[in-house]
Amino acid sequence: MPERITILGLGLIGGSIGLGLKKAKIANIEIVGHDRDPDATGRAKRAGAIDKSEWNLLAAVEGASLVILATPVLAIKEAMEQIADSLSPGAIVTDTASTKVQVMHWAESLLPEQVTFIGGHPMAGKEVSGVDNAEAGLFEKAVYCLSPAKNADTKQVDVVVGMVETLGATPYFVDPHEHDGLVAGVSHLPIILSSALVAATTSDPSWREMQKLASTGFRDVSRLASGDPAMNAGIASTNREAVVGWIDRYIDELKIYRQLVVDGGDDLTKEFERVQSARDVWLYGASDDGSRREQMKGMSFAQLLMGDRLAKLTGGFGRTDPKKKK
Amino acid sequence: MPERITILGLGLIGGSIGLGLKKAKIANIEIVGHDRDPDATGRAKRAGAIDKSEWNLLAAVEGASLVILATPVLAIKEAMEQIADSLSPGAIVTDTASTKVQVMHWAESLLPEQVTFIGGHPMAGKEVSGVDNAEAGLFEKAVYCLSPAKNADTKQVDVVVGMVETLGATPYFVDPHEHDGLVAGVSHLPIILSSALVAATTSDPSWREMQKLASTGFRDVSRLASGDPAMNAGIASTNREAVVGWIDRYIDELKIYRQLVVDGGDDLTKEFERVQSARDVWLYGASDDGSRREQMKGMSFAQLLMGDRLAKLTGGFGRTDPKKKK
Repeated sequence: MPERITILGLGLIGGSIGLGLKKAKIANIEIVGHDRDPDATGRAKRAGAIDKSEWNLLAAVEGASLVILATPVLAIKEAMEQIADSLSPGAIVTDTASTKVQVMHWAESLLPEQVTFIGGHPMAGKEVSGVDNAEAGLFEKAVYCLSPAKNADTKQVDVVVGMVETLGATPYFVDPHEHDGLVAGVSHLPIILSSALVAATTSDPSWREMQKLASTGFRDVSRLASGDPAMNAGIASTNREAVVGWIDRYIDELKIYRQLVVDGGDDLTKEFERVQSARDVWLYGASDDGSRREQMKGMSFAQLLMGDRLAKLTGGFGRTDPKKKK
Repeated sequence: MPERITILGLGLIGGSIGLGLKKAKIANIEIVGHDRDPDATGRAKRAGAIDKSEWNLLAAVEGASLVILATPVLAIKEAMEQIADSLSPGAIVTDTASTKVQVMHWAESLLPEQVTFIGGHPMAGKEVSGVDNAEAGLFEKAVYCLSPAKNADTKQVDVVVGMVETLGATPYFVDPHEHDGLVAGVSHLPIILSSALVAATTSDPSWREMQKLASTGFRDVSRLASGDPAMNAGIASTNREAVVGWIDRYIDELKIYRQLVVDGGDDLTKEFERVQSARDVWLYGASDDGSRREQMKGMSFAQLLMGDRLAKLTGGFGRTDPKKKK
């Protein structure tokens, strides 16, 4: 019987995970998909993002070794409540939501003890949603945050790491609180900025003319305003404190810029030089240490996923501890 | 003798105009280029953006029918002062700067009466600068603002319109004051927002970790922070009042968003829905009336540029008034 991976929520992210895993052509794996919207489930099947569509949520997770919750963050709680009793003992559950503290709390209180939760957050996306916009390569070269629950053991973590690497992404282990603080600045604040830019300009009486002059600069800075409204609202509501803190910090920064424009001296040029250089360093100079990747070297996702079963079949010798592998 | 077009300033914009005009393979045209930096001039020549490099500024503009000032806005004043006496009577001068009120004032006070100034501003660009990043297609499908001086006649305006259309762009006639107010919102404000985002995040103690999680959203919203610092400072200093007004307007909008996040109700979702839809309308619903394009139909840039000379050569019958053409 093939190892079962279940994806709940077949939108852009869930669909792209399915396509990415299918593209890897892993033997002996069955990807089951379920979406609250039967039409989305059907489209995911036709797009080849899943092997099998399952209309019944509980049937979808039964017997699954790995369950991926790829729903909007606010739907995760309800999904956990519903699937809790149908999960197989030993199952690994992961998610893809943009905030982690709240999700980890839900997992701890709602999922049974024999199930391991490993929070996940791929740092990639598009402003368009739905499985029709999904891509096998969406996560290639992206950082993929992982926050394992306290009861997760190395082998279980490695299964999710294997999935992440199969998708071409780089695992990044991070404490949930730290995660939420960090993404508030580089991910959630930009959503607010983009949206507020669109709000301020399109509500202006001159917008009718102004819009004709809006070009690539406006397009890019406003891109995140086209993101899924429910997803964006869910992000803000599950990371309220950090987002508000960043808005305040950002307004202070804007006031500094305002003063530099009013003063009109060389200081504004220097400031523009400073941010140009800071962005260049980020864009061209960032690196990850890759130590965990090194540790995992040589282990396939299939090996990792089937580790326990293989171990059982072979009397416990089917798998080398990746920590010793290095 | 070929008709001479001179480009002063061989950066991204000047270089792209040269490449675009050269690509059109207009017969009997010579494109002369000059840059304060001899190295840039040489690279423009090698890139095929100009036919001839001219190291002497005054020699570059002598005998030119059309002079394109593609320098940063703050360098335009000095360029006008220097070339004023070397321009041929009847020459048309245009620019590509991001603000128009200040430039039109300089043109009026510095250029001789027998020369016609037609302010220009192509609504296209890239965050990278220099002729090495220039592209023949940079202005394709872009709006190209035009603000003719009071003494410009239809034929002269049509020459610049011909150039704009040769570049694949759409002319958009606009009063200089209106122009500066409009671009402050959709072009200059986004530059400030992008830069302030980079300033706020990169100066944070957590940036070292945060930068690893910064993804495509951060990349796009921060893109304009990588623009040319001198150009951005020039824009802000020549459009101070409008830019400051928009920063204030934007801070007010951010405070509204802050409150929506704090309240955490459905209103935030509704707001995200509103901006998503407003941006979609802009992105997919914008249109131009194209009346001027219709008027120009059938007139080639070469015809327009050589109109006067052709008229002289043929005793005044070489050219049909485009207004009658329709």
